[in-house]
Amino acid sequence: MEFKILHRDKGSLARAGTLITDHSEIQTPVFMPVGTAGSVKGVHQRELQEDVKAPIILGNTYHLYLRPGLEVLKGAGGLHGFMNWDRSILTDSGGYQVFSLAANRKLKPEGAWFSSHIDGSKHLFTPENVVDTQRIIGADIMMAFDECTPWPCDLKYARDSLMLTHQWLDRGVNRFKETKPLYGHKQAFFPIVQGSVYKELRRESAEYIAEKGAEGNAIGGLSVGEPAEEMYAMLEVVNEVLPDLKPRYLMGVGTPVNILEAIALGVDMFDCVMPTRNGRNGMLFTSEGIINIKNRKWMNDYSPIDPAGSSFVDIQYTRAYLRHLIISGEMLGAQIASLHNLAFYLWLVRKAFEEIKSGTFTAWKEKMIPALSTRL
Amino acid sequence: MEFKILHRDKGSLARAGTLITDHSEIQTPVFMPVGTAGSVKGVHQRELQEDVKAPIILGNTYHLYLRPGLEVLKGAGGLHGFMNWDRSILTDSGGYQVFSLAANRKLKPEGAWFSSHIDGSKHLFTPENVVDTQRIIGADIMMAFDECTPWPCDLKYARDSLMLTHQWLDRGVNRFKETKPLYGHKQAFFPIVQGSVYKELRRESAEYIAEKGAEGNAIGGLSVGEPAEEMYAMLEVVNEVLPDLKPRYLMGVGTPVNILEAIALGVDMFDCVMPTRNGRNGMLFTSEGIINIKNRKWMNDYSPIDPAGSSFVDIQYTRAYLRHLIISGEMLGAQIASLHNLAFYLWLVRKAFEEIKSGTFTAWKEKMIPALSTRL
Repeated sequence: MEFKILHRDKGSLARAGTLITDHSEIQTPVFMPVGTAGSVKGVHQRELQEDVKAPIILGNTYHLYLRPGLEVLKGAGGLHGFMNWDRSILTDSGGYQVFSLAANRKLKPEGAWFSSHIDGSKHLFTPENVVDTQRIIGADIMMAFDECTPWPCDLKYARDSLMLTHQWLDRGVNRFKETKPLYGHKQAFFPIVQGSVYKELRRESAEYIAEKGAEGNAIGGLSVGEPAEEMYAMLEVVNEVLPDLKPRYLMGVGTPVNILEAIALGVDMFDCVMPTRNGRNGMLFTSEGIINIKNRKWMNDYSPIDPAGSSFVDIQYTRAYLRHLIISGEMLGAQIASLHNLAFYLWLVRKAFEEIKSGTFTAWKEKMIPALSTRL
Repeated sequence: MEFKILHRDKGSLARAGTLITDHSEIQTPVFMPVGTAGSVKGVHQRELQEDVKAPIILGNTYHLYLRPGLEVLKGAGGLHGFMNWDRSILTDSGGYQVFSLAANRKLKPEGAWFSSHIDGSKHLFTPENVVDTQRIIGADIMMAFDECTPWPCDLKYARDSLMLTHQWLDRGVNRFKETKPLYGHKQAFFPIVQGSVYKELRRESAEYIAEKGAEGNAIGGLSVGEPAEEMYAMLEVVNEVLPDLKPRYLMGVGTPVNILEAIALGVDMFDCVMPTRNGRNGMLFTSEGIINIKNRKWMNDYSPIDPAGSSFVDIQYTRAYLRHLIISGEMLGAQIASLHNLAFYLWLVRKAFEEIKSGTFTAWKEKMIPALSTRL
């Protein structure tokens, strides 16, 4: 994996770069659509390529491990072959899902026991076996197994959890070094900074992580309920420490505003279910603000969904039509809203790249943030 | 509307023709994807055009009347404008849905009272107001209001129902003649033959309908549970009577086998929810037979969904992948299966056209029917 910073913003820590994997060249800042179970919900692969223009997507190790399972994935030559996606893939380690989705979780030093949310079967994730699993999935970027602390979380819990996450990291790094990719393309391994909303823990964690010399570094445990200001404060602390010349990935974030603020704080990579999940529920993100398409005010609005939008759905369908589909529970409504939102998120990060390149990022961001938060 | 028969099969009553509306030229035999509530479930309009290659789709008056409602449809310039579909549309009259979906139905000579399945609100459909509604929807082909008899159905009920359907037809024809299209394109009005599985009633009905001199004629009340042989027997009787030079539309039918048999009996137009509804549940129709993709045998089958298929999903996705998506309840599974099945149905009727043209229809049909019924 190769990462180059091409441009830096003068008014902030924003950087515009390029991340090259064996599968694709990824312009950063980048947003990665979430393909939880091997599919970005409601969106065909060709739409992800041609309409959303996503150079990288995310898969969830927890979901893929349970279904279709490793045997099927291995037979397909990994997730790339299974879903027929020839650009990059990042997989999380499953830690977050074990703690948010699975039942009967038991955290032990060796790893996390849990019962499948699908059939109740019992499983153990360890720092080692999630590396093995991600080798089988074949993601270009794999993640270390961590405990994502909830919010709020007291200092003692956060500190103990962080120690465990760091021990797990060392075990994961060892396993990563002992094993090889299975499908002929290189795989990177990113450690994850934790530490809840405690600056000292975050700094300590960032220092610990930085020492690993990984090809990229992630920041987890944010956007879990804490005020956005606390998240930004943590990013400031962490990004001071994380190596400048390596990509920084903020996990599970967030709104368009969160993304612009985090870019200004030196973050390069993002993922979030918001564009698809909120889209399915009728929330549309646009450059003019947020639309709740279920609102009665759109009932007779025969204008395009987003005249400034970059995908075919923005022009081909009207707000009145999309409102009808979402209210009626028609699948096509979820498809349109998901595609629109993803295309918007990808447009936003491409635009951020251009603004950083032009030296106008900060002014542009200040102009965009009030617009992006407006409720239309 | 213009209908021309271009070729006739020597071994059967099959005909290959062209039906021209103000919106599109429709090669017949044709299958019309069902867009119940203004959307073919799971399929974008551009996919219907480019991948399924559908020259005409169907909308359901009952659903559209309830939601989005006539005000919204009128504001959009009818259903064509509302869903941004510039090819042809046929709407049913709502009769079938009133009897199959709505609650508290009360059949009166003036029409049918019912409660909405959405919010329980009370409504009356009459032979006249469903014409008015279809004027507002703006379908290229509108249907008369009828009672679709259930199966089984005794002779007395079937006869009384048929008398009512014929009276309603006269009232519908009058309203059709008194009213004009609203959007500048022509609209045709098809009467519907009923009569359950009674040959004498079917003949009587076909004679009554034929006398109306409509631009096309429909056959309803079949494929409602009766054995396929009874349906074919009714088609034989009815098609002897219905004008040869007008298109014949068999409503709500059916399997690929049903369609080929009915083409051989002189039917030109079909619609059915089967390709989309069964597709969402994992049933795939192919030229080699029927696939239940949930079956364990497809778990490790990394071959394309349908190597002989005509749409992009057939080649881009594997059976193992589709099985995983359907079993996991991922939207994309329903999207892929629906698109595949619709593309297959449209391929089948285009192929029937070519075989009729080549004078090889009957031999081809005899070869296809066992294949189409095979469970793979």
